[in-house]
Amino acid sequence: MTGARPGRPARLVVIGGGFAGLWAVRALRAAPVEILLIDRHNHHVFQPLLYQVATAGLAAPSIAAPLRHILRRQRNVTVQLAEVERIDPVARQVFAGSQVIDFDFLLLATGVSHAYFGHDDWAGQAPGLKTLSDALKIRARILTAFEHAESCADAGEAQQHLTFVIVGAGPTGVELAGTLAEISRHTLKNEFRRIDPAHARVILVEAGPRVLPAFTPELSASAQRQLERLGVTVRTGLPITHVDASGVRIGAEFVPARTVLWAAGVSASPLASTLGVPQDRSGRVIVGTDLSIPGHPEIFVAGDLAAVSSSSGPVPGIAPAAKQMGRHVARVISARIATKPPPPFRYRNFGLLATIGRMAAVVDLGPLHFSGLLAWWFWLLAHVYFLIGFRNRLVVLIDWAGAYWTYQRSARIVTEEGK
Amino acid sequence: MTGARPGRPARLVVIGGGFAGLWAVRALRAAPVEILLIDRHNHHVFQPLLYQVATAGLAAPSIAAPLRHILRRQRNVTVQLAEVERIDPVARQVFAGSQVIDFDFLLLATGVSHAYFGHDDWAGQAPGLKTLSDALKIRARILTAFEHAESCADAGEAQQHLTFVIVGAGPTGVELAGTLAEISRHTLKNEFRRIDPAHARVILVEAGPRVLPAFTPELSASAQRQLERLGVTVRTGLPITHVDASGVRIGAEFVPARTVLWAAGVSASPLASTLGVPQDRSGRVIVGTDLSIPGHPEIFVAGDLAAVSSSSGPVPGIAPAAKQMGRHVARVISARIATKPPPPFRYRNFGLLATIGRMAAVVDLGPLHFSGLLAWWFWLLAHVYFLIGFRNRLVVLIDWAGAYWTYQRSARIVTEEGK
Repeated sequence: MTGARPGRPARLVVIGGGFAGLWAVRALRAAPVEILLIDRHNHHVFQPLLYQVATAGLAAPSIAAPLRHILRRQRNVTVQLAEVERIDPVARQVFAGSQVIDFDFLLLATGVSHAYFGHDDWAGQAPGLKTLSDALKIRARILTAFEHAESCADAGEAQQHLTFVIVGAGPTGVELAGTLAEISRHTLKNEFRRIDPAHARVILVEAGPRVLPAFTPELSASAQRQLERLGVTVRTGLPITHVDASGVRIGAEFVPARTVLWAAGVSASPLASTLGVPQDRSGRVIVGTDLSIPGHPEIFVAGDLAAVSSSSGPVPGIAPAAKQMGRHVARVISARIATKPPPPFRYRNFGLLATIGRMAAVVDLGPLHFSGLLAWWFWLLAHVYFLIGFRNRLVVLIDWAGAYWTYQRSARIVTEEGK
Repeated sequence: MTGARPGRPARLVVIGGGFAGLWAVRALRAAPVEILLIDRHNHHVFQPLLYQVATAGLAAPSIAAPLRHILRRQRNVTVQLAEVERIDPVARQVFAGSQVIDFDFLLLATGVSHAYFGHDDWAGQAPGLKTLSDALKIRARILTAFEHAESCADAGEAQQHLTFVIVGAGPTGVELAGTLAEISRHTLKNEFRRIDPAHARVILVEAGPRVLPAFTPELSASAQRQLERLGVTVRTGLPITHVDASGVRIGAEFVPARTVLWAAGVSASPLASTLGVPQDRSGRVIVGTDLSIPGHPEIFVAGDLAAVSSSSGPVPGIAPAAKQMGRHVARVISARIATKPPPPFRYRNFGLLATIGRMAAVVDLGPLHFSGLLAWWFWLLAHVYFLIGFRNRLVVLIDWAGAYWTYQRSARIVTEEGK
């Protein structure tokens, strides 16, 4: 048996309160373990709707809930706000500031961020979208861009402020591009006196051959058509070769643009490398079918940070997969404590959804594919359903209903912090 | 006739999109004036509920709306996001960055902030509450204080993190103190494992002899009783003589406290002094009964920044007074353009309300005074009524109904910006 010592319950340290970490913790509510959940934020974020905060559709608190509050009734959990710097897998210790925390079991679930492909200096110019802070920063940039354009005496400069480049056409890039097009064409209508926001250019750049590469080629083509109908310019097969304050180079062509948003690449949480085990090209930790790392059956990695394959290929970095992995780690820990053989992880693919904009989305349910209005309703219902457990779902629904009828967005607020 | 020049409509520049500025602009929707509304934020804030954002009860976007959106249908208004540095009353010009803006009429309505009575170095340690950014900063401080206490190995240090001092017992100070007591005793119940948040001390300090000095002595006494029932320690008649990172000195006594919030004093917007006319002790501009400044009938000051008296004494710095002043400036400008004598400003006192906490408030309607549960319902209905025009009022109602039944608060989110 691994982990537990006689006379007291085994101690599990979970790093990261995202879908993987939180679902593991909740699945262990009746298990004989003492859990310490460490996160550097005080809240869990419903990441699939982060782009809505970034595009002023929802207030930040509508998609986040304090981890302490979610877990207040689960007496075997202590929540701690801290930043872990290092893990010592051999000594079974976690280091956070001046604290040294012992563990019997460890779950590392700190996720991934975007990768700038060796150009980390682009990060300041082209923010990515992974946390609520990122979302508020992007929201401020987008709203301020229109304000700058309105204040410009020079028409050429105004057009640069009205040019938005989104790098990477995965679900996040597609959502940002589609929503930005909607904002410029509908939300801001009649609000400016010198510029016409509808003249904004929204350019979605993808180095690969098609948008939404995880979907079927037919759905990618449909997504591109839906994006173009919303007013987005889609450029595929071209890498970004330069980013600065005045614009981006797409392949060989320089495009003047004051707002660049980054939604490309995958870069693992730096904590992963302190485990000292093999990582894939993006830094994700390669785990076994029990989601533990080689040589350490008591240390698990789950969620976006875990590189794991199922019968249908690599498990995607999406919320349903993270929840499944989190629950699986809970099952393995329970099995280990009961000295039973752990079951192997099997990813159940419930499908892929991506929303594009108003009444535009694509849905891939394996045998069943569809897109457009029907896909958009499906996406909407699925997300409202999964928001259940968040007390703010009613608020989200009202905001969305309001936005649907009026094209308005309820969170168009720039605070100093967000600038 | 002042202001208008032949052949084109008079140009009115309004600085500040608070209640005074916005109500003046709206009242001039049919007047032959071209209006430029300048604000350094993109939004109007419903200030009476700012303390709710600071105490995590409401999301920031729920009490704010973009000025452009509010005014989108009023075609004689241009909204500009800018910071005005200086006014030249003789040349009739306003200076904002590199811009020089001419005006025929000017309305200065930039409000006031708190005063540290010559100790501006306390500002970093003891933030005041005037903008949404302030509210988000205070929210982060309050939430983080409980997190720090939970992480402390030392019980004495934990108690310092659990000690909150609020300086100034006007409506804002009373609201903050009452709500903080509610948060520590109810909202956070069961969420911590090492500390008991109910052991938090909330100390409300007032240099004057009683809380809510603008109310009758009976209502002040009632407010103090209600505060004490909620768990607030009220200290009156004692000035703060020192503030640093470890605590405050109240009179001669040092109280260790890691969180100090400032709600005392009045300090006029620095722009006021560039007018070169008499100001009162706090820097407010002394205006005539037409709300214009001496020697410049085309320049008006309204809202909290204006020092003006009515038959019943000085007009208070509250939202209803600011709206009345804003509308009055609109009437005077219309009268001037029509070469008619302007009516004098008369303040209509509709009463004073202050909320204290859950089911606790005081109401002073002149002949009619009441406090407690009835006053709280009166306060609630009045504020929901005045939020009308904000599309978020339904969201506010839901958040409040949720908070009432569950004691929960929907915006308990700390983002990096707020730290």
